[in-house]
Amino acid sequence: MKDFLEDITELLGERGFTQDKDLVDPWLTDWRGRFTGKALGLASPASTQEVSQLMALCDRHKVAIVPQGGNSGMSGGATPDTSGNALLLSLRRMDAIRSFDADARQITCEAGVILQNLHDIAAQKGLRFPLTLGGKGSATVGGLISTNAGGSQVLRHGSMRAQVLGLEAVMADGSVFNSLIPLKKDNRGFDLKQLLIGSEGTLGVVTAATLKLEPAIAERLVIWAGLGDVRDTRKLFLHAEAKAGEAMEAFEILPKHSLKAVLDHAPGARSPLQAEHEWHCLIELVADESRAGTLMDLATELLESAFEDGLVEDATLAANETQAEDFWTLRDEISPAERAIGPAMQHDISVPVARMADFIAEAVPQVESRFAGTTGVAFGHLGDGNVHFHVIAPKGSSRGEWENSQGKKISEFVHDLVTEWGGSISAEHGIGQLKVAELGRLGDPASLGIMRAVKLALDPDNRLNPGKLVPLAPTAQ
Amino acid sequence: MKDFLEDITELLGERGFTQDKDLVDPWLTDWRGRFTGKALGLASPASTQEVSQLMALCDRHKVAIVPQGGNSGMSGGATPDTSGNALLLSLRRMDAIRSFDADARQITCEAGVILQNLHDIAAQKGLRFPLTLGGKGSATVGGLISTNAGGSQVLRHGSMRAQVLGLEAVMADGSVFNSLIPLKKDNRGFDLKQLLIGSEGTLGVVTAATLKLEPAIAERLVIWAGLGDVRDTRKLFLHAEAKAGEAMEAFEILPKHSLKAVLDHAPGARSPLQAEHEWHCLIELVADESRAGTLMDLATELLESAFEDGLVEDATLAANETQAEDFWTLRDEISPAERAIGPAMQHDISVPVARMADFIAEAVPQVESRFAGTTGVAFGHLGDGNVHFHVIAPKGSSRGEWENSQGKKISEFVHDLVTEWGGSISAEHGIGQLKVAELGRLGDPASLGIMRAVKLALDPDNRLNPGKLVPLAPTAQ
Repeated sequence: MKDFLEDITELLGERGFTQDKDLVDPWLTDWRGRFTGKALGLASPASTQEVSQLMALCDRHKVAIVPQGGNSGMSGGATPDTSGNALLLSLRRMDAIRSFDADARQITCEAGVILQNLHDIAAQKGLRFPLTLGGKGSATVGGLISTNAGGSQVLRHGSMRAQVLGLEAVMADGSVFNSLIPLKKDNRGFDLKQLLIGSEGTLGVVTAATLKLEPAIAERLVIWAGLGDVRDTRKLFLHAEAKAGEAMEAFEILPKHSLKAVLDHAPGARSPLQAEHEWHCLIELVADESRAGTLMDLATELLESAFEDGLVEDATLAANETQAEDFWTLRDEISPAERAIGPAMQHDISVPVARMADFIAEAVPQVESRFAGTTGVAFGHLGDGNVHFHVIAPKGSSRGEWENSQGKKISEFVHDLVTEWGGSISAEHGIGQLKVAELGRLGDPASLGIMRAVKLALDPDNRLNPGKLVPLAPTAQ
Repeated sequence: MKDFLEDITELLGERGFTQDKDLVDPWLTDWRGRFTGKALGLASPASTQEVSQLMALCDRHKVAIVPQGGNSGMSGGATPDTSGNALLLSLRRMDAIRSFDADARQITCEAGVILQNLHDIAAQKGLRFPLTLGGKGSATVGGLISTNAGGSQVLRHGSMRAQVLGLEAVMADGSVFNSLIPLKKDNRGFDLKQLLIGSEGTLGVVTAATLKLEPAIAERLVIWAGLGDVRDTRKLFLHAEAKAGEAMEAFEILPKHSLKAVLDHAPGARSPLQAEHEWHCLIELVADESRAGTLMDLATELLESAFEDGLVEDATLAANETQAEDFWTLRDEISPAERAIGPAMQHDISVPVARMADFIAEAVPQVESRFAGTTGVAFGHLGDGNVHFHVIAPKGSSRGEWENSQGKKISEFVHDLVTEWGGSISAEHGIGQLKVAELGRLGDPASLGIMRAVKLALDPDNRLNPGKLVPLAPTAQ
C-alpha cells in the first residue's frame, strides 16, 4: 500500500491526489445523505492520459476505484463502501470543451463538465442541450452518461443515452476506448458505447463524450390542466400527442396531494386553476426558430377539443414566461414539499407507457390498504411511463425510525407490484448501492447472468465500483 | 455425433431438422455467391422454446451454430465455414406476429418475419415500418437486427437499432433473454439489448423483437438535382436540412458515371434532367397525415433558394408517384448496372457526415492514380456519411481473375484511407466473414480487446457463428 501511495502521488502530484480529510470527506457521503463510505484518498486526474496511467497503476496494485462526477446521484452509485480500500476517482478537474461544431450540432466535452455549463455553452451559439434535471448545477457529463440520466425532457429527446454520439472511457487495465469521432453509421461489431452508457462505472470510467445538440427553443407554451381521474391523464396524453406531435416536450402529472403539499410549502406558490381537481397535468410545447409562432394555435386547438371531448375539467395557458416558470416550479417543488410533510419511501419506477395510469389507479390503494395509515403519491413523467411513487408515513411517524422499521417492506411491496406489471424498479435513477439487492432479488435470471459474465470479463478482479449495479452471484456478495 | 443427430431429430422432428442435401444446400451459399460452406444439417425450430432446447443441446454436444434469416446478408455472416461441423439454424419458420398495438405504434414479431410482410402488416393499420432495403422480399427481422441493417431511410429514422424497443434472444447455454415489454425508461443495468443488436449472432440468437412503427406517409415529394462538384452536394444537403428539417427522409448522391451506367443498363430509364451534370442528388420529402399538403411549398422554397444561392445547376420535382418511383429506380439500379460493366471491388464505408463529400473528392483520384486504369465511383447515403465506394476494373479485365489478383490490395488501400479519415470499413453491411481480417488489421486494439472479452464471456467455446465479426486473438485465427 505504501508503494501505491508513493506511485500515485508521483503520478498525479499534489493537486491530483490527496488524503486530506477536509478535502476528501465531503465526497464520501451521497447528496441525499443515505450512504457514507471511506476511501484510500481522492484522485483528481487532469487528463485522459492520467486516468489511463492511474487505472493501470490500480490494476498493478489491485486497488478498487469508485468514479465520481458531481456526487448528485440518487442511488449511492458514487459513494465508496466502508472498507476504506477503494480510491475515490473524481473526474471534476477534467472539464474542458475539446471541440464544438455548431454546424454539425456536436460538442465534445470532458467528463467533468457540469450540465449547467453545457447548457450555457450551447446557448451561446443558438443551440441547446435538451436534457435537464434538478441537479444541473453539480451533475457532470460523465455522471449523466454513467447513470443514463433522465429528467423531464425525455419524452421528446430521450434519456442521456440518446444524446451520446461518441464516447471515450478508460477500462480496468488502463486501455482507452475511444469512439469520439461520431459516425452516423458504423457496423464494426458490438456497440461498446451503448454497453458503457448506464453501466455506473462498473465496466470503465467515462472520460469524455461527443454529444448531440438541438436548435434553441424560440417559443414555448405551458398548459396546466385539471382532471378528475388518473386514467383521464392517459387519455389527455394521447390527445395531446395526436394534436401536438413533436412539439410536445413534456407531459407531467401531479395528484391533488402533491399540489397541496407544494402550495403549503413553497412561498408564493399558487394554483393555476380556481377549483380543486384530483389530478393535474403540465404540458410543455416548444418550437425552434423554424416553427416559432405556431404554438398558440396548436395549444388553443388542443385545449378546445379536449374540453369538447370532456377530457379535462379545467385548463389554462401560462400567459407569459414568468407564469410558465411558476407552473414548472409547482412540479419541481414536489419532492422537497413532500419531504417536508414527513418520512416517506420513494420509488423511481416505470411500467409500459400505456399502462402507467392504470398502474397508479390500482397500486396506490393496494399500498395504502396493505400499510395502514400510509399515503401513496405518484407524480412525474407520465408520458415516459415513469413516475416517482412515494409512500408517505402515517401522521406522527418519526423520521429515521419509520423508514428503518417499515421502509424495506414497503419498497419490496412496491417493487413486487412493478415487476408484476412488467416494469422497472429503476426508471431513471439507476441501481447504485441503493437497489442492488432488489435487482438481485427481482431481476430476470438470464439478464443477471449476462450482466455478471460481462462484468467479470471486463473487470475480472471486481475493482471498478464494486458493490454497485451488478448483483454478483450470491456466494460473491 | 450420432447421439447429437438422434437428439436433435427427436427434439425438432422431421420438419425441424434435415440433412437432405436438396433442402440444405441452397442455404450454404450467400446470396452474392462469394462464400459457400458446409453444415451438419439445417435446424428450423418453430418456437423460442425449441430454440432454447436446441441451444442447450448444442451446448452439451459442443456443436457450433450459424444462425440464418433470409440469407440476404452482404458479408457472408450467415454462411457456415467449410468444416461441416456447424449446425445451420434457420429462424424462417418463426414468423408469427405476437402482438400489434396500433395505438402505441408497436409490433412484436418473431425473428423470421420478412421485411416486406412487416411493411404490409403495418400499412394495413395506417402505419409504416420505416426501414427498407433492396432485399426486403427475403430479409428477416432477426437478420436485420443481428446486422443492424441500414438502407435509404436511415437519415431520418436511424438504422435498425433505432427501431428496436424490445428483444428476445437465446444465449449460448439455452437461457432466454427477454426484454420484449418495452419500457421507455429502464436503468436496471447494462443495456443488453443494445449489445445483441448488430452482434451478428456471435453472442446469442435473436428470436423475437418489439419494433417501433411510424405514421403512414400521406404525401411524398422527390427532388432530383444536378450539381457540378461533389462538395456542392454537401452544401445542398445542409441547405435542404435547414429548409426541410424532419420532412427530409433521404438524401442520396450519384456521380455521372453511375447515372450513365443505369441509363445504359436499365430498360426505359431516362435522365430527369436534360443536360449532363457531374453529380446528382435525390432528395425525398415526406409528410404524414398531420402535415400532408405542406410539401410542395416546402420543396419550391427549398429549390428556389438553392438556385438563388447557386447550389444547383438544375433541378426538378417528380410530377407524380410514377415519376418519383422512376427517380428512385435510377438510384436503386446503380449496383446491378455497375456490375454489368465489369468486375469491381465494392466497399461499404462511412466517415463523419460532414467530411464525406471531401473524402470522395480526395479518395477517388487517389485510388485511380494508385491503381492505373481503375474508375472510382461513390454513391449513396451522403446524408448519413455513408457511400458505396466501388473501384471498377480497367476495361477488358477478366471477372474473377482481376478481383483475385488486385482486389485485396485495392480494398486494403480504400480501408486504410477510410481509417485515416476516422471512418468505418463497414457502415451498414456488417463484418461477417468478408471483413473480419480487415477489422482485425485496422480495428482499434482497445475496442477489439473489449469485443473479444465480451464474446468469450458469453460464448466461452466460440460456438456461436464462429469466424464471424469478432477477430479473435491472432493465435486463435
